[in-house]
Amino acid sequence: MRKMKSMNRFRIDVSYDGTAYAGWQVQPNVTTVQHLLEKAIKKITSEKTKVHGSGRTDQGVHARKQVAHFDLKKAISSVSSFKNGLNAVLPADIRILKVMNVASDFHARRSVSAKEYRYFIWNSNVMPPFLRNYRVRVRKKLDVEAMRIAAGLIAGRHDFTAFSANPGREVENPVRALYDLRVIKRGKEIIIIAKAEGFLYKMVRSIVGFLIRVGDGSVPPAEANSLLSSGKRTAHVPTARPQGLFLWNVWY
Amino acid sequence: MRKMKSMNRFRIDVSYDGTAYAGWQVQPNVTTVQHLLEKAIKKITSEKTKVHGSGRTDQGVHARKQVAHFDLKKAISSVSSFKNGLNAVLPADIRILKVMNVASDFHARRSVSAKEYRYFIWNSNVMPPFLRNYRVRVRKKLDVEAMRIAAGLIAGRHDFTAFSANPGREVENPVRALYDLRVIKRGKEIIIIAKAEGFLYKMVRSIVGFLIRVGDGSVPPAEANSLLSSGKRTAHVPTARPQGLFLWNVWY
Repeated sequence: MRKMKSMNRFRIDVSYDGTAYAGWQVQPNVTTVQHLLEKAIKKITSEKTKVHGSGRTDQGVHARKQVAHFDLKKAISSVSSFKNGLNAVLPADIRILKVMNVASDFHARRSVSAKEYRYFIWNSNVMPPFLRNYRVRVRKKLDVEAMRIAAGLIAGRHDFTAFSANPGREVENPVRALYDLRVIKRGKEIIIIAKAEGFLYKMVRSIVGFLIRVGDGSVPPAEANSLLSSGKRTAHVPTARPQGLFLWNVWY
Repeated sequence: MRKMKSMNRFRIDVSYDGTAYAGWQVQPNVTTVQHLLEKAIKKITSEKTKVHGSGRTDQGVHARKQVAHFDLKKAISSVSSFKNGLNAVLPADIRILKVMNVASDFHARRSVSAKEYRYFIWNSNVMPPFLRNYRVRVRKKLDVEAMRIAAGLIAGRHDFTAFSANPGREVENPVRALYDLRVIKRGKEIIIIAKAEGFLYKMVRSIVGFLIRVGDGSVPPAEANSLLSSGKRTAHVPTARPQGLFLWNVWY
């Protein structure tokens, strides 16, 4: 790759409420977060640029912290004013947390060392109205201990094909090191924390869908082993709804 | 008052996100919480009834817990199924927390013994997107100690005319016992808790507007005394924006 000395690379940390968006990635005829970021950068700098995210998030999925990079021909005198300028033109459900001038070999997707997702379940009859877009309600009381046993079997280095969706393309290597999968109970909330170097498509929502079925007693925890070894997705692995999922952190 | 033996009185505890509504009270040509509750009750029971709240909340103001009552001719066999039925027809930003069959002399407004409001300030540059409808951002770092001194002067039994708005009608007695007014700092949040037997119109938002001006250094805390004794509202008492305000609890 030829190094372009005249380019300035920027990293942005961005938080968004995914409720109103057709996900992260630019697609025709719908509003996406990536598209609105590119529009905001153009408005502030008059430069047309492509914003590269650490990965996509699906429709309705949120980001407490997503990371992206882009290149500008112009230099930016103050990254702090640049941040405030972007936030002034972006809608309130997308916020730039930080802008950094980074080395030209930084790449928001390729340089990732780890990512963390958190999924929030509201395990009670009545969902507080203020959480309706950020939690998924499960009325039946879930067996958190059973979910923890299953999570212990799923964590680790495995072929995660049974816990992923194939979006019409083959994955070169479906093995991922899921080095942390925890189930936390906090009042009426059950929070599932998943940390890995990388994730397959819909992997977190598939694991959560399975863990909810374990928690409600439909499937025994040990079924996790059969799923992982067979590499076949079954009806025991529904995809949990998107609004409970947050991209929580990205490490480099 | 003639006692109507054939009537069944119900108390409901209700939580709502005020963002989409023109406040609590029924008004022509706009959607209000009271209106949607009456519509939901009619849908479930086929009875047209009036829902009486503990008080109004303004446009954009939320309720963690509002209390209301209404009468039905029919008896309800299960208040729990009635609750679930109402929640099934109400929009997700209005939730019935509890339904109780109460004595016919219970009155949601007249029987109130105390009410608590909480106002949430986000005292930082960037508002998290998930809190944008539930917090008011103040960028300048507020002096919480000065706010606490002012709050100490405002708490107590006073004529609160200077901290209220007159909605075109005279208040018979503008004296209120504000027996708790606290300023709490929690990370980037500043929370103002106000508890009283009753409040004048826009009293909490007026007090908060003044406390913010004290916190940003525009007004000394002692100005609270002059305002209370003069009974005249001044430019030092702006009305804080509605989205930070929650009706938090109602006691009987």
